[in-house]
Amino acid sequence: MARMNEHFLKLTSSYLFSEIAKRVNTYKETHPEADIIKMGIGDVTLPLPEACIKAFHEAVDEMARAETFKGYGPEQGYPFLREAIAEGDYRSRGVEIDAEEIFISDGAKSDTANFQDLFSSDAKIAIQDPVYPVYIDTNVMAGRTGVFRNGRYEGVVYLPCVPENDFLPDPPKEKVDVVYLCYPNNPTGAVAPRDYLALWVEYARRHDAIILFDGAYEAFIRDPEIPRSIYEIPGAREVAVEFRSFSKTAGFTGTRCAYTVVPKECRVKDGEGRFHSLHDLWFRRQSTKFNGVSYPVQRAAAAVYTPEGQAQVHANIAYYMENARIFREALLGLGYACTGGENSPYIWVETGTDSWEFFQILLERAQVVCTPGAGFGKSGEGFVRFSAFNFREHVEEAARRISTVFSGATP
Amino acid sequence: MARMNEHFLKLTSSYLFSEIAKRVNTYKETHPEADIIKMGIGDVTLPLPEACIKAFHEAVDEMARAETFKGYGPEQGYPFLREAIAEGDYRSRGVEIDAEEIFISDGAKSDTANFQDLFSSDAKIAIQDPVYPVYIDTNVMAGRTGVFRNGRYEGVVYLPCVPENDFLPDPPKEKVDVVYLCYPNNPTGAVAPRDYLALWVEYARRHDAIILFDGAYEAFIRDPEIPRSIYEIPGAREVAVEFRSFSKTAGFTGTRCAYTVVPKECRVKDGEGRFHSLHDLWFRRQSTKFNGVSYPVQRAAAAVYTPEGQAQVHANIAYYMENARIFREALLGLGYACTGGENSPYIWVETGTDSWEFFQILLERAQVVCTPGAGFGKSGEGFVRFSAFNFREHVEEAARRISTVFSGATP
Repeated sequence: MARMNEHFLKLTSSYLFSEIAKRVNTYKETHPEADIIKMGIGDVTLPLPEACIKAFHEAVDEMARAETFKGYGPEQGYPFLREAIAEGDYRSRGVEIDAEEIFISDGAKSDTANFQDLFSSDAKIAIQDPVYPVYIDTNVMAGRTGVFRNGRYEGVVYLPCVPENDFLPDPPKEKVDVVYLCYPNNPTGAVAPRDYLALWVEYARRHDAIILFDGAYEAFIRDPEIPRSIYEIPGAREVAVEFRSFSKTAGFTGTRCAYTVVPKECRVKDGEGRFHSLHDLWFRRQSTKFNGVSYPVQRAAAAVYTPEGQAQVHANIAYYMENARIFREALLGLGYACTGGENSPYIWVETGTDSWEFFQILLERAQVVCTPGAGFGKSGEGFVRFSAFNFREHVEEAARRISTVFSGATP
Repeated sequence: MARMNEHFLKLTSSYLFSEIAKRVNTYKETHPEADIIKMGIGDVTLPLPEACIKAFHEAVDEMARAETFKGYGPEQGYPFLREAIAEGDYRSRGVEIDAEEIFISDGAKSDTANFQDLFSSDAKIAIQDPVYPVYIDTNVMAGRTGVFRNGRYEGVVYLPCVPENDFLPDPPKEKVDVVYLCYPNNPTGAVAPRDYLALWVEYARRHDAIILFDGAYEAFIRDPEIPRSIYEIPGAREVAVEFRSFSKTAGFTGTRCAYTVVPKECRVKDGEGRFHSLHDLWFRRQSTKFNGVSYPVQRAAAAVYTPEGQAQVHANIAYYMENARIFREALLGLGYACTGGENSPYIWVETGTDSWEFFQILLERAQVVCTPGAGFGKSGEGFVRFSAFNFREHVEEAARRISTVFSGATP
């Protein structure tokens, strides 16, 4: 019988969101009248910006006429979108990125999952803990880890993000080949100052490592001192790949568009020490395994870079960040230590208790749902994540409830 | 320095379509007045069906209002589309496929490329020759082959599709783990009779092999005796995965939607002989590495199954098949042996000469572009592929030209 990829057997079941759903449903059954507010989910609630809707419709109309119909597009995306990104997200901010270095895709999840295809199966990987599970799970599937034991996969270098290091772990002492970094961080909400990113670029250059930098939440950075791209750090073009998404920025979680920047200077080597362009390898991977993003979706994404699109996107982000401020103040008022919520849509809260226990108490006393930090990794224990992606009235109501219920005493 | 996946180095450059473009451009430079007709490309020319356009617009409007906005959808696709496919493409034709066995994706290219993720790295692969390059290239990248030598990758079982076997190669004598089959075939245009598919199902059951069946062109089958799905063969549910696409059927090459059927009975085993569900593994793979297809695109695809959608899709297919008939008759009139063009949009023509030489003669004498068969594999030498995806007037003009130029003497 055909043999399976046995590395899949090492995967621990991704029970986090299904366990949350199960517990919420159990509570609902015994409390059918309860008005439950979900503050745990990282999905947007505001509709697509009007500029995107307009461009989307226009492109659908192009698909309706033979003269303007579009068949197969370039696997790496249409030049109109790659140019708009290079100008709007990089050159206009003083960062030199060429349109040819940008690859359009259907999601930062796909790209952060697939990029490891390019590395040898024995590449040494470092990831942060707590972490977005895709980075680690895809490396498990590819056989770059040992088994899961005591909350960790063997053979992986974990970088604990904890209050003691302000959620900014130092580069490891040992040499690794590939490092996954995410800032503004999911789930901790921490942001990376310039000198912190510079430490990593220096580490990567010294050890010939590649940094896979997930910047899916960069649009939420409001502090002008915080870099929005790893390429703001000198020397990063040789060692860093950057992942970006329209999901949270422009509400594309259900529309699906993202991009990855692979500078032409990024190199890896083969077993005989010869250099190879990571850009060429990613192009080969994408052109072999992917057929590009839907044309109307690419037109909708390009509208983000029009003046109207920019104004609408900024308004949406401001709305979510006001949600974050409201909820964060309620938490601070109760005496909780919080990270994030200022330059990030996530608020990471130290509960001082088992994170599932806190989840349960919060659900039962306030009918508010959070995400237990333990679900993101061992170092997430003792924390929960709240998300600012919600309607204002729900956030205000959730803030009122926790302030009343927990007033005077943290649970 | 981070080490690369060295299996990428084994890949031969995919020069086929770039070489065609280069030769066409060279010809254009010296013959700027030439009216060149491209009969080689497998991309549709008719616009999206009206029913799809209407549903597409409506879904974009849903994305414009908070009350109807859709964020993250299920990774495996929305139930409305999976149900429509199960009913429209299977149950209504007497084939039992459950909606839960259908996974929606952005393309059959992605799915046929990614499915090999589920098998062990030493799985023995069989592919047809000539072949759609994605099947073999993705297995090369995954390390399941040796080096490329004399037109073949070592370690792969090739199944030559040649006139001697009516382009229907027998299952190999040896045991393989995974077989890629494509019918109606790209590039040969051959279709698989029921008893031929039954041979393969029997082989797969006997050797515990998995058949990866690419049915991207099934909608072009008009002969009621030819199975449109591998699941019409008893016993296939235990051993076959089927890939389908809206690309050629409904003109989605630039809109991007496809699906893969993984029956719940399909199993693989681990090193200790325990069985695992291929359906569960594919779900794990897709939910970890993919975030689903754009919601408006899924709505557009579902409209294919409305009465209007069906009528419009059938009209488009009839248009392309009339193109195929016209061009095929011109070729037959010149004395060429042709496969395909009756239940398939591709016509595979035995040229009797080197396929690049024929390409060049056809370009220079008739200003018609074909695809040299050698580009699809060693057994494609001596053949060229013509595609029916074009506008009627171009096909008629190309047919006229070859009939005039080659009349009385094959080139």
